[in-house]
Amino acid sequence: MADEWATFGADLHLELRGPRLRAGLMDALREAVRSGRLEAGTRLPSSRSLAADLGMARNTVADAYAELVAEGWLTARQGSGTRVARRADPRPAVRPTPASAPAPFLSRPARPAHDLKAGTPDLASFPRAEWLKAYRRALTAAPNEAFGYGDPRGRIELRTVLAEYLARARGVHARPERIVVCAGFVHGLMLIGEVLRSRGVRDVAVESYGLGLHAGLLTGAGLGTPALPFDERGTRVEELSAPTGPGEPRGLGESGAPGGSGEPGGSGEPGGSGKPGGFGRLGSAGAVLMTPAHQFPLGGALPPDRRAAVVDWARASGGFVLEDDYDGEFRYDRQPVGALQGLDPERVVYLGTASKSLAPALRLGWMVLPENLVGEVVAAKGAVDWVSGAPDQLAFAEFLGSGAYDRHVRAMRLRYRRRRDQLVAAVAAHSPETRVSGIAAGLHAVLALPPGTEQAVLRAAAWNGLAVQGVNQFRRPTVPATLDGLVVGYATPPDSAWQGALQSLCRVLP
Amino acid sequence: MADEWATFGADLHLELRGPRLRAGLMDALREAVRSGRLEAGTRLPSSRSLAADLGMARNTVADAYAELVAEGWLTARQGSGTRVARRADPRPAVRPTPASAPAPFLSRPARPAHDLKAGTPDLASFPRAEWLKAYRRALTAAPNEAFGYGDPRGRIELRTVLAEYLARARGVHARPERIVVCAGFVHGLMLIGEVLRSRGVRDVAVESYGLGLHAGLLTGAGLGTPALPFDERGTRVEELSAPTGPGEPRGLGESGAPGGSGEPGGSGEPGGSGKPGGFGRLGSAGAVLMTPAHQFPLGGALPPDRRAAVVDWARASGGFVLEDDYDGEFRYDRQPVGALQGLDPERVVYLGTASKSLAPALRLGWMVLPENLVGEVVAAKGAVDWVSGAPDQLAFAEFLGSGAYDRHVRAMRLRYRRRRDQLVAAVAAHSPETRVSGIAAGLHAVLALPPGTEQAVLRAAAWNGLAVQGVNQFRRPTVPATLDGLVVGYATPPDSAWQGALQSLCRVLP
Repeated sequence: MADEWATFGADLHLELRGPRLRAGLMDALREAVRSGRLEAGTRLPSSRSLAADLGMARNTVADAYAELVAEGWLTARQGSGTRVARRADPRPAVRPTPASAPAPFLSRPARPAHDLKAGTPDLASFPRAEWLKAYRRALTAAPNEAFGYGDPRGRIELRTVLAEYLARARGVHARPERIVVCAGFVHGLMLIGEVLRSRGVRDVAVESYGLGLHAGLLTGAGLGTPALPFDERGTRVEELSAPTGPGEPRGLGESGAPGGSGEPGGSGEPGGSGKPGGFGRLGSAGAVLMTPAHQFPLGGALPPDRRAAVVDWARASGGFVLEDDYDGEFRYDRQPVGALQGLDPERVVYLGTASKSLAPALRLGWMVLPENLVGEVVAAKGAVDWVSGAPDQLAFAEFLGSGAYDRHVRAMRLRYRRRRDQLVAAVAAHSPETRVSGIAAGLHAVLALPPGTEQAVLRAAAWNGLAVQGVNQFRRPTVPATLDGLVVGYATPPDSAWQGALQSLCRVLP
Repeated sequence: MADEWATFGADLHLELRGPRLRAGLMDALREAVRSGRLEAGTRLPSSRSLAADLGMARNTVADAYAELVAEGWLTARQGSGTRVARRADPRPAVRPTPASAPAPFLSRPARPAHDLKAGTPDLASFPRAEWLKAYRRALTAAPNEAFGYGDPRGRIELRTVLAEYLARARGVHARPERIVVCAGFVHGLMLIGEVLRSRGVRDVAVESYGLGLHAGLLTGAGLGTPALPFDERGTRVEELSAPTGPGEPRGLGESGAPGGSGEPGGSGEPGGSGKPGGFGRLGSAGAVLMTPAHQFPLGGALPPDRRAAVVDWARASGGFVLEDDYDGEFRYDRQPVGALQGLDPERVVYLGTASKSLAPALRLGWMVLPENLVGEVVAAKGAVDWVSGAPDQLAFAEFLGSGAYDRHVRAMRLRYRRRRDQLVAAVAAHSPETRVSGIAAGLHAVLALPPGTEQAVLRAAAWNGLAVQGVNQFRRPTVPATLDGLVVGYATPPDSAWQGALQSLCRVLP
């Protein structure tokens, strides 16, 4: 993160508690020094700027600093500011060794009090009993060979019911032999990236906003990821076929593009950065990665003319559209728009997942592939299925085929819709300046903030123990910052925590 | 396979049926032409050589050929041999499109009648009821967060019971924070290979005989795989520290090594070949991949002095031993020898799997890592666990922790031991020339054949519809052919098929 104070505030995990503000701040700073999170010598923000960041009176912060100087925790010197004291007998720095270091985004010292980060469904709603029933039926009925090394395309039982389901629910032209089961979207994208790269594709265009993790997987496969510009109607796919020669920079040049050296990271999942392309390399893109049904994170649906245009581009150029249909089942105001894949199954790679509709921990995803990619993707996966366990695939086939999946999706749709409605109402009541943008769909909403306020709201959220992300955390490095907003994952909290999270959110809105 | 007749015989899948031999051969050839397996123009083996391969009288084959020429299926012309006729109205060639082509080793037109290929446990013995019980308990007890994105090291519940189990059963020095769960050995080796490569390791030495798939994964990661020579006591690990300069060829040079252009493939699983190193690059190896408890496929246990020597080499050179403990739980004549890892947990990477002890389809494996590799392996796996599903990990933790795993392993040990004893007795009775070599352990045995007979026995086996492999299918390309033998996977058939498979095997032995 560019702004260290935001991190600083987040690390303190302090709830604002009326009259105990100063004491609370002091406790948080003491704990941060004691645990080694604030190392000796670290310079603290000035009392003026920390007060502004935290929405406190400047005197409250200045008093807290003074007390801690008196206690020996901090030192203050004219011209050098306030710093963490070098203590005579410092405890060994609590730097976890690699052996005990958990994953980067699990390494926060404590859980935030409220979690509205997008990307996770309501885990408390996982249908344990129904899933167990399906698992038991599947395991009991499985032929013996199902326990051996499996077909890399995945179990035929699953591909058969998936083909039926995807045609019915998402308008996907699917046949079982076009489907390859994978361990979720990330695994699928890795395989596709590997195949495209080995076909000689140089660049895969991405949307202006998206998960840094996904772009990072593509750059990890040796692909450039130029970003498609966007406007109020969504991603400007027509830029793919603008009359510029392939590979010839135009608009923002690759080298001149701002921020090309780093990827801000998306959704808290570091994805590596690699070599992002600027807008200028769009002409040489051999594929485009998109979220047409519900742009992540901005929340729009790709309008019909642009759906047609991107398929036209793929046909004319021989390119592919990689359709990330991560939450296509969740639309609240109308029937979901069918998958883009239906427009041209030979030019669109459809990628679906059970991570949003059921649970990320199942590691179940699927690709529906153009015929001429199937062989290469299967070969990239290996001679047998080294990744996806057969019992889970068979259980999911049973879960889908028995109608339990439809019932679960319907139930979750009602629940998430209710939450979204409550979010819209609460925002309207507490913050008239804030607008809920995007379609009524999915597991997250974007709150469009007044220009220039995103960072301040994020700092206030961190200070309130509210985990939430800003749209700029999903902005590709080459895309200029023009939006301010929060990406609110309203599906994330369990029911018991939802109202508290919503109130916490309202407190930090302008 | 180098010898096309073996393939040819295997494709016919014909059981020898006394007086109907000629008719049976004709039917098989007709069917092979009709289905497109034998394409128009294909030259058939001479009647003399096919008769020798199949153990038939030459006249029987010649008569069958003549009849089929008369029927128009074949053509015979002096000097051009017997070929499949170009028919006037050929059926469209049955070339499955990539879309419908199954995995290479699943693409055989029909299943062989008997399967003694090594690598798979008795799938019919998968303990469905006990596994279901563990799965139900685990899913019921799981905290909600278990359904979200998980720690890339794997579930702590599983790592905790694994540490206890591996210490008890295999003498592994394991702590939960040193364990990384993976989707089986292949996934683990891919991660290790990636880490070693990024550390600048050029070569990982392998044993003279092993799975081509595994060497292929290493070469796919950009690593050379020079082969360690062997003698009657096993792999000559002392060659790793022979006084030759790093990277300096000695013995069989890399370029002059025979067969360096291709990998014969192991266990029917194509693994890619890449750039095999000769014996000469051993000096620059940064790691060695071994099967110390039960060499695969030759079947010996690494003697104590060599166990010590390979660990000494790793200590002195800063290298690593990658210990593939694929079947360490199955020893029949004594207590299993503990894992090599116990000798030096900081220089040995222990890789274990449930694929042999339970079922390949679970995709459950584990690594116990030297402390200084943990961080890099976890980073290679990703910020979260994109691969292994949490419910399966929790079920396996419950299965292990409840003692169900120990009970299952004990039951399978008895069953496999009985099969091995029956194999030894049957071979002694039917083929005194054949010797069962290797220790009484694991899920496979090696039948040492008289010199020069392996190919003939394999052809006879294929003709009998018996799937079995020769030791030379596991020989590294740079290793000279000096052994003849069969690798018999006696765990593979279900109980109902075991006696038939054993009889079929005895029929083809010299």
